Amino acid sequence: MEKIKFGMIGGGIGAFIGDAHRRASRICNDYELAGGVFDVDYEKSKEFAKKEGIDLNRVYKSVDDLIKAELALPEKERMKAVSIVTPNALHYPFAKKLLEKGFNLICEKPMTLTVKEAQDLEKLVEKNKLTFALTHTYTGYPMVRQMRDLIAKGILGTIQRIDAQYYQGWINSIIYDTGSRITGVWRLEPEHAGVSSCMGDIGVHAFNLIEYTTGLEVKEVLADLNNVKDNVKLDLDGSVLLRFNKKLKGIVRSSQVAAGEENNLSIAVYGSKASLKWQQEEPNFLYLLSDSEPTKIYKPANGYNEKFAEESHTMPAGHPEGIYEALANIYKGAAKSIRKQKFKAGEFPTVHDGVRGMKFIHAAVNSNAKGNVWEKL
Amino acid sequence: MEKIKFGMIGGGIGAFIGDAHRRASRICNDYELAGGVFDVDYEKSKEFAKKEGIDLNRVYKSVDDLIKAELALPEKERMKAVSIVTPNALHYPFAKKLLEKGFNLICEKPMTLTVKEAQDLEKLVEKNKLTFALTHTYTGYPMVRQMRDLIAKGILGTIQRIDAQYYQGWINSIIYDTGSRITGVWRLEPEHAGVSSCMGDIGVHAFNLIEYTTGLEVKEVLADLNNVKDNVKLDLDGSVLLRFNKKLKGIVRSSQVAAGEENNLSIAVYGSKASLKWQQEEPNFLYLLSDSEPTKIYKPANGYNEKFAEESHTMPAGHPEGIYEALANIYKGAAKSIRKQKFKAGEFPTVHDGVRGMKFIHAAVNSNAKGNVWEKL
Amino acid sequence: MEKIKFGMIGGGIGAFIGDAHRRASRICNDYELAGGVFDVDYEKSKEFAKKEGIDLNRVYKSVDDLIKAELALPEKERMKAVSIVTPNALHYPFAKKLLEKGFNLICEKPMTLTVKEAQDLEKLVEKNKLTFALTHTYTGYPMVRQMRDLIAKGILGTIQRIDAQYYQGWINSIIYDTGSRITGVWRLEPEHAGVSSCMGDIGVHAFNLIEYTTGLEVKEVLADLNNVKDNVKLDLDGSVLLRFNKKLKGIVRSSQVAAGEENNLSIAVYGSKASLKWQQEEPNFLYLLSDSEPTKIYKPANGYNEKFAEESHTMPAGHPEGIYEALANIYKGAAKSIRKQKFKAGEFPTVHDGVRGMKFIHAAVNSNAKGNVWEKL
Amino acid sequence: MEKIKFGMIGGGIGAFIGDAHRRASRICNDYELAGGVFDVDYEKSKEFAKKEGIDLNRVYKSVDDLIKAELALPEKERMKAVSIVTPNALHYPFAKKLLEKGFNLICEKPMTLTVKEAQDLEKLVEKNKLTFALTHTYTGYPMVRQMRDLIAKGILGTIQRIDAQYYQGWINSIIYDTGSRITGVWRLEPEHAGVSSCMGDIGVHAFNLIEYTTGLEVKEVLADLNNVKDNVKLDLDGSVLLRFNKKLKGIVRSSQVAAGEENNLSIAVYGSKASLKWQQEEPNFLYLLSDSEPTKIYKPANGYNEKFAEESHTMPAGHPEGIYEALANIYKGAAKSIRKQKFKAGEFPTVHDGVRGMKFIHAAVNSNAKGNVWEKL
Repeated sequence: MEKIKFGMIGGGIGAFIGDAHRRASRICNDYELAGGVFDVDYEKSKEFAKKEGIDLNRVYKSVDDLIKAELALPEKERMKAVSIVTPNALHYPFAKKLLEKGFNLICEKPMTLTVKEAQDLEKLVEKNKLTFALTHTYTGYPMVRQMRDLIAKGILGTIQRIDAQYYQGWINSIIYDTGSRITGVWRLEPEHAGVSSCMGDIGVHAFNLIEYTTGLEVKEVLADLNNVKDNVKLDLDGSVLLRFNKKLKGIVRSSQVAAGEENNLSIAVYGSKASLKWQQEEPNFLYLLSDSEPTKIYKPANGYNEKFAEESHTMPAGHPEGIYEALANIYKGAAKSIRKQKFKAGEFPTVHDGVRGMKFIHAAVNSNAKGNVWEKL
Repeated sequence: MEKIKFGMIGGGIGAFIGDAHRRASRICNDYELAGGVFDVDYEKSKEFAKKEGIDLNRVYKSVDDLIKAELALPEKERMKAVSIVTPNALHYPFAKKLLEKGFNLICEKPMTLTVKEAQDLEKLVEKNKLTFALTHTYTGYPMVRQMRDLIAKGILGTIQRIDAQYYQGWINSIIYDTGSRITGVWRLEPEHAGVSSCMGDIGVHAFNLIEYTTGLEVKEVLADLNNVKDNVKLDLDGSVLLRFNKKLKGIVRSSQVAAGEENNLSIAVYGSKASLKWQQEEPNFLYLLSDSEPTKIYKPANGYNEKFAEESHTMPAGHPEGIYEALANIYKGAAKSIRKQKFKAGEFPTVHDGVRGMKFIHAAVNSNAKGNVWEKL
Repeated sequence: MEKIKFGMIGGGIGAFIGDAHRRASRICNDYELAGGVFDVDYEKSKEFAKKEGIDLNRVYKSVDDLIKAELALPEKERMKAVSIVTPNALHYPFAKKLLEKGFNLICEKPMTLTVKEAQDLEKLVEKNKLTFALTHTYTGYPMVRQMRDLIAKGILGTIQRIDAQYYQGWINSIIYDTGSRITGVWRLEPEHAGVSSCMGDIGVHAFNLIEYTTGLEVKEVLADLNNVKDNVKLDLDGSVLLRFNKKLKGIVRSSQVAAGEENNLSIAVYGSKASLKWQQEEPNFLYLLSDSEPTKIYKPANGYNEKFAEESHTMPAGHPEGIYEALANIYKGAAKSIRKQKFKAGEFPTVHDGVRGMKFIHAAVNSNAKGNVWEKL
Repeated sequence: MEKIKFGMIGGGIGAFIGDAHRRASRICNDYELAGGVFDVDYEKSKEFAKKEGIDLNRVYKSVDDLIKAELALPEKERMKAVSIVTPNALHYPFAKKLLEKGFNLICEKPMTLTVKEAQDLEKLVEKNKLTFALTHTYTGYPMVRQMRDLIAKGILGTIQRIDAQYYQGWINSIIYDTGSRITGVWRLEPEHAGVSSCMGDIGVHAFNLIEYTTGLEVKEVLADLNNVKDNVKLDLDGSVLLRFNKKLKGIVRSSQVAAGEENNLSIAVYGSKASLKWQQEEPNFLYLLSDSEPTKIYKPANGYNEKFAEESHTMPAGHPEGIYEALANIYKGAAKSIRKQKFKAGEFPTVHDGVRGMKFIHAAVNSNAKGNVWEKL
């Protein structure tokens, strides 16, 4: 099958997330990286392209240049999609331009800086009937998809509590350094990162995982955030109480200063009959707890799984796939959509998930700023 | 060495917690159960005593009778301590009478129904110079004590986040039953249990574990509690935000309706340099995480442990001790105090811990009732 | 109920295994330690008794003295059982004398030094209709008993492979020391330990666990043992191939020089339909693997367990019991037998298990000595 | 950098291992699949190529055709390497032809059917100075490489025991079926699989992992293999005792009938000072046990790791990579060699590892056939 030609904005030399996107695109094998704007520095951008074996004619100085030049190409040659892997603040302006000109997008999260921007993009995507995949990568794991389908089947009974956590510790090494690195890390600077560090960068993944696996919507939040140190401008840590309805509450806990935690994202959904628990660092194990039966461990590539989980894993049982394969699953889902093939809800996070995420981040920040009051999403 | 003669209030036939106390007293081997008021029904109380081989002359109809009769015995024969293992509402009246008459106490938690009652007992204990051990059993585990000592040594750096959880699921089978059992379970009835079910019965353990391991005091809380069903009078689930100081926040999460969870108490204390994590269902493993070194697993009976942990475990390494041994460690600590031997702070939870616990429960319930506002302890 | 008066041979000051037996006897609450020969040094023996509050009149200079004096007491006062917790070489002579005089026995393993001795004891037990409990402690764990019952129900299909392991590392610190301690550790001396260190002390537990859980008999073994250092007289490590029948093979792997291993006893029984796995250091988790269903984790105190497992655990679910409770379960089983109450096969390991163990040890040692040939049990 | 053009023999529609190789080649991004002989059926081969977007002119009817046509191409266009992913019996004839004509090879294991064949290939590789990478995929995991380097540094002291296991259960579903599938599975047919099923297909991975991580050579083996059912022609299960030297013994245990086991490959290397343990199903955790310190857990992407491990993982800490990335690491190592770049021993398993593996398989089968005697490698 013809590969989808795509471009990339950001993700040049040294950028780990751009590399992850490229690997994912190669794993799923539906894409071909045709060019892009890999760096604000044009020379560096070309240097990168040379290293990667990318046609230098399609390395552009700016997103505007890219749009103009690509649109001038015959449709068959033209990039059909663009991946945006820049710092947060640039997602919106680039996404807007590209959507307006008819490019499908794959975009890093958080989607924008404001809810308004997010809603703008949502409208554009709908209007222009484009594919917009937001890379909440963790939704690409087979056992996360299994969790979603098991919950949809109703095996938990009435959901009674939802508890998601995302703990990392890497920012400690920065905030206890001699100051210089604080400005160097764009995630800690409001002008690049937006209103939040911890909730915007990782808490939102936990939030997304909740809505993705349960199909429920958080209605309001009450947040207590912590900047940890006086010279830090954004939250590095916090707890966010969630309300879904009168009898269903939950929580998102997140920290970037939990020393020694690497990427400890986990979710537990507790129902009246049974519960499901999953941890990102051991992604191929899904635990089903119940009051009346032994705990069950679901693993990929087994006949007992739902179809979606099975389609999301290619190796035989017991051969661990990892995060690149999860991201590849999202790229694959987006490819189906781009190609107008049939696909399932949940094969990739959408622009709507992006709007939800922005609402969550802003509601949390506002709740905290107002003195820990309930804030609607 | 002469055994400490002790009595027991409650804990007759079918009472699991009374049996646990008796086993603990036998494991540590410092006590001899001399008699008690094992049941409100005197006949059942005697039946129990017969079964256990306890002198029927020291099975009493009431706590008043016990006090009177025991005080009439020569001091050498007399009970020196009494264990109170009744439902919550009876802890205070019995404890008060016994303390007033000079009996040392070992008492189940939550200590009383109100903060005022708890403070009364605290004054009495101080005034009469008695031993009062509150059975926050989990503080008796060797690795919890190791955690306390490692934190006291400062190996975590600045503590930045504290997260404790206590999840159980057994109440689901009750609240989804046909109503009859709801009244049967005293933990769900305010007149027996007090103002809270979930926070009073288990959340308070998580709270206690935080103060026990860190030596820090929670200053204020903001709680969102959940009764889960309309006909349930008390909280069965909830999250409690904690503040220790301006830059240190934490959380207690607790549920009795987390289906399939058995007794999932866990604690994580995150510092600027390192973090410690412990789970009750695998009590002999303590995890030390750090940014710069591999995660370390501490286990009992190893030379690398602090002295207190080592004294709290008797088997060679790799031979698991369990919750009875944890409770026995608390009984042993209380025995040292009763015998006026030297003992360490932390060898048993005190009446002061009981006051703290009552403050926590009431602050959480009040915060929730007032609409999730900060409430001082 | 009247407690069973029992005596103890060995287990004085500093002896960990004697202390374990006493704790177990107190936990199950069926016994009263009436006296014994706690040390070869009579003064030390008395010192110990004083410390423990044991009647000094029943501290004896020798087993002969004990027998004579106890038989002189009225039957109601007399010890009905004796626990033997001496080094291996003394098990047989003491057991023989005591059985001949009608004492029920609880005896540490390995039961004797030779198969012949073991068979002698077996005959004596049968002839005098006495209770003989061999403390293969691990058979007292609830989840080991669950494993036994699940296998007996046939849920594994045809058993196709059995793999048991017992790894410890503590002897490294001895054999790499300056020699002096080698003689100090009786387990390394043939005159005290018998023909084997590793297989005799721990390998035999793994062997026992196989026969206990499966109900199968090992027919022949082929062993490759390793003394590890030239100046060590006994095996410290080895692998023993097992044959049950033409199509069923297995293995016991055991080491005392596996640095850092504490008490890593584990067993896996693989069948045509499903398999069961258990590890001693996490004794409250039993894993059932199958080709067609998610892995299941059995835990104690759940309605889904077989009755025997449930009777072997007293705490509610999620409250870990440990090795003292396992040993207490064996003491409780022996108590039922001593009292002529009804009990199940498997409630305590018998003198026949002791004969099997001695056959295993000797077959392994002989196989190794003869150049790794098959040796019948 | 210019991609290495490579071809593939086998691995057409439905072949999982061919797909794995292609993914790995794309992940490491050093290769371009130029053509091949994907199926014995030429039409199927072309169908596959069409689906993958491979130039149909380079889909060949036979290996001979491939060689002839590729050699006729200008060197810049020509395949520089070929991946052989056929059933075992075809590895040797194809490898021989390709090596003779100067193609570098990436070959599935077991390398050949006989030791002689393996040695032939080894000579050819040396003579023609070619790259030959044998895909013992597990050696590509970062933590396996960390294990190798930690052992090379000597942190274990004297190695005293080595224990490797490879358990799977998938063949149960075949051998208990109605016979038909037995012939369908080439792994159970001597003419396709060679002299062994279990040892040849998976036991040899465990063996390889031992020699890879320790740098030691197994000198002789004693095997007890099990065909499990009468109508099965090859071993499906077995234990192989290993000897490295007089004082160092070990074991390989392997089964394809361990119901419910998925891909449970594990290795433990025990030394006098410390030990290392690793399990394939949780590949990002490496355990270092020692007598004097808490157990340490090494994870990828941490500064405390050796350089080789760090170079073998691209994601930040806590983002799990899996088996495709392990295989990609081997492809990357081979690419360095093919390009005459500098590379480390251990970056890919070599033809010499293939010879060792064949010696192991044959020694095990011979030992078993001769009645479980020691057989030299």
